[in-house]
Amino acid sequence: MSYFSSNFKLGILGGGQLGKMLLNETRKFDIYTCVLDASDEAPCKIACNEFYKGDLLDYKTVYEFGKKVDVLTFEIENVNVDALETLEKEGIKVYPSSKTLRTIQNKATQKLFYLDHNIPTAAFSRFAYTSEIEDAISNGGLQFPFVWKSAQFGYDGNGVKVVRTIDDLKDLPNTECIAEAMIPFKNELAVIVSRNVKGDIKTYPVVEMEFHPEANQVEYVICPARIDKEVAKKAQDIALKVSNAFNHVGLLAVEMFQTKDDEILVNEVAPRPHNSGHQTIEASYTSQFEQHLRAILNLPLGNTDSKVAGIMVNLVGAEGYNGNVLYKNIETIMDMNGVTPHIYGKKQTRPFRKMGHVTIVNENLNEARKVAETVKNTIKVISE
Amino acid sequence: MSYFSSNFKLGILGGGQLGKMLLNETRKFDIYTCVLDASDEAPCKIACNEFYKGDLLDYKTVYEFGKKVDVLTFEIENVNVDALETLEKEGIKVYPSSKTLRTIQNKATQKLFYLDHNIPTAAFSRFAYTSEIEDAISNGGLQFPFVWKSAQFGYDGNGVKVVRTIDDLKDLPNTECIAEAMIPFKNELAVIVSRNVKGDIKTYPVVEMEFHPEANQVEYVICPARIDKEVAKKAQDIALKVSNAFNHVGLLAVEMFQTKDDEILVNEVAPRPHNSGHQTIEASYTSQFEQHLRAILNLPLGNTDSKVAGIMVNLVGAEGYNGNVLYKNIETIMDMNGVTPHIYGKKQTRPFRKMGHVTIVNENLNEARKVAETVKNTIKVISE
Repeated sequence: MSYFSSNFKLGILGGGQLGKMLLNETRKFDIYTCVLDASDEAPCKIACNEFYKGDLLDYKTVYEFGKKVDVLTFEIENVNVDALETLEKEGIKVYPSSKTLRTIQNKATQKLFYLDHNIPTAAFSRFAYTSEIEDAISNGGLQFPFVWKSAQFGYDGNGVKVVRTIDDLKDLPNTECIAEAMIPFKNELAVIVSRNVKGDIKTYPVVEMEFHPEANQVEYVICPARIDKEVAKKAQDIALKVSNAFNHVGLLAVEMFQTKDDEILVNEVAPRPHNSGHQTIEASYTSQFEQHLRAILNLPLGNTDSKVAGIMVNLVGAEGYNGNVLYKNIETIMDMNGVTPHIYGKKQTRPFRKMGHVTIVNENLNEARKVAETVKNTIKVISE
Repeated sequence: MSYFSSNFKLGILGGGQLGKMLLNETRKFDIYTCVLDASDEAPCKIACNEFYKGDLLDYKTVYEFGKKVDVLTFEIENVNVDALETLEKEGIKVYPSSKTLRTIQNKATQKLFYLDHNIPTAAFSRFAYTSEIEDAISNGGLQFPFVWKSAQFGYDGNGVKVVRTIDDLKDLPNTECIAEAMIPFKNELAVIVSRNVKGDIKTYPVVEMEFHPEANQVEYVICPARIDKEVAKKAQDIALKVSNAFNHVGLLAVEMFQTKDDEILVNEVAPRPHNSGHQTIEASYTSQFEQHLRAILNLPLGNTDSKVAGIMVNLVGAEGYNGNVLYKNIETIMDMNGVTPHIYGKKQTRPFRKMGHVTIVNENLNEARKVAETVKNTIKVISE
């Protein structure tokens, strides 16, 4: 069935900012869309044809939603994967597949997958419960420091903690987890790989996450990454290897570390449009959102080259502000060259909540970097 | 009142393809939108916050809709301008203003406006009724050939006819009209001027309409126009002069003829996003739709430069096809480099109906022109 058929319906699980940007592209192609989200205030509530309120982790809710559509995709990994599997068996096209998602949802399974496929990744140990870690330490099977990661439902920094002493373990949930070697890395890199149903593959350029020198937080996503060609080639090759191993349909964002010895280690992947690809909207011939649609609808993939250099700055809620959001100085940054704010439409801000992002494009990457810093120092997400 | 206020509402008169592309940009900025359109199947029906069905030419309907919003704009000129005037008096911000629209709505008034402001335009005569033209011809006051234009509600080629003999007058409506000298032109050019509430002005590059050598129909909008720098400068200057004369807020698309002697004559203007600016979505730092929003919301204007060369091909219904639309070979063109189709979402096709457009971008304009020709010869808008 062609997506041009008047009966075609695309389903999206999750109605947040990624879904919203995906919906924008569906409008361009006039694709009929249905969205399921738990919140009546989801950014996707407008711009889709049918909106359903419901729990993405509930089998019956996801199954019944999936039965309404022809192709089902998701903008968030925390969805009921058993329902996706049943839907696939009943002929609904689920992209990425339940198999891909199941492997990725559990961080221990994901790490084992890399080992099985000979994909370089940081050394790790797997534990059924956090409480087992103390035994491993007393046995000498595990040394400080390490990175504790919850196996399930870790998302955007939740469920991750650097453990340097036994005390750091105290407040962690007693759940399935991994303990991963800390990698002293030069750069955190990412590559988005797109793959359509018939198996065509195109990769976006390598991007670099630039960290704040003190706060150790990602401040800028920079495209292209300011790295040697050989390193970029290696990162691209490894991203492709990961993509081939998953045999996914849709986007696969592959996050990697560049070690001090210029080794590339895979950190984790996301089978969907990703924060590291937002600059593609303004900078690339084909945005990651359009590309995801092309991939899951089995259309030809678009050109992933950049028209210009692009930098992305996240807009997160400032500390000390809760309530109705206010974007202080947004008009000032809109007066800067090549600056486009994207406001996600969440009504309430709270500290560190992702409220939007700003893209800075320029023919010259260094110029874009300068403007990005001014943007970062100017706009502030506060409350009324 | 800032558009970031949670109470701010933007109203759009008209829910067609221009409104749809404008709505896409409002989503990025999270602007609350209300749309009024006569059709329940309007492309804008989704992606706005509130949709109202009603007659755009009815005073009471437009007035009551306008009272709900803070800023009112339109995507089509055929709206009730008396209602706009009343709304302005009652404190609603209407951009472009009723005054600008009133001058433009009537082609005779528009032509007189150019004369009054010393703006070069083709010679013309004004008639209260088409029937008066015959008298003018017998008196020797008017010679064949000339271009007959209905003063009111001429839109997209309707209400325009080349008159070469007395017989050509026969089927024309007996209405207020002008008879305009035929201009043997080298090129049809256009410049979009943007002006915000506080009076900042930025112009887009000059674009060129390339005509089919036999059919005399616009085939491609080409940005930048392949003309001498001096001619481009002259076109920009005249467009700015027109913009200054109107003192408009929002976009003003100025269509011009480049005569055989490289004179520039203003043909007509549109106070809104325009067909000659669709390529800005992919080719420019700021799309015309984003720029229109920035202008009417009194935000800083964006950069109007191009990232890459852009060409636009209209997708109109093929002759001989009526009914449920089908975009034949759309997947073939999506496999070409730098090609993005925009489907407007009209369910039914009929001959020459505007159903969408395709943008072709490339660093090299000649390369883009080649791809555009292949696109034009490949895709066909037919019925199921």
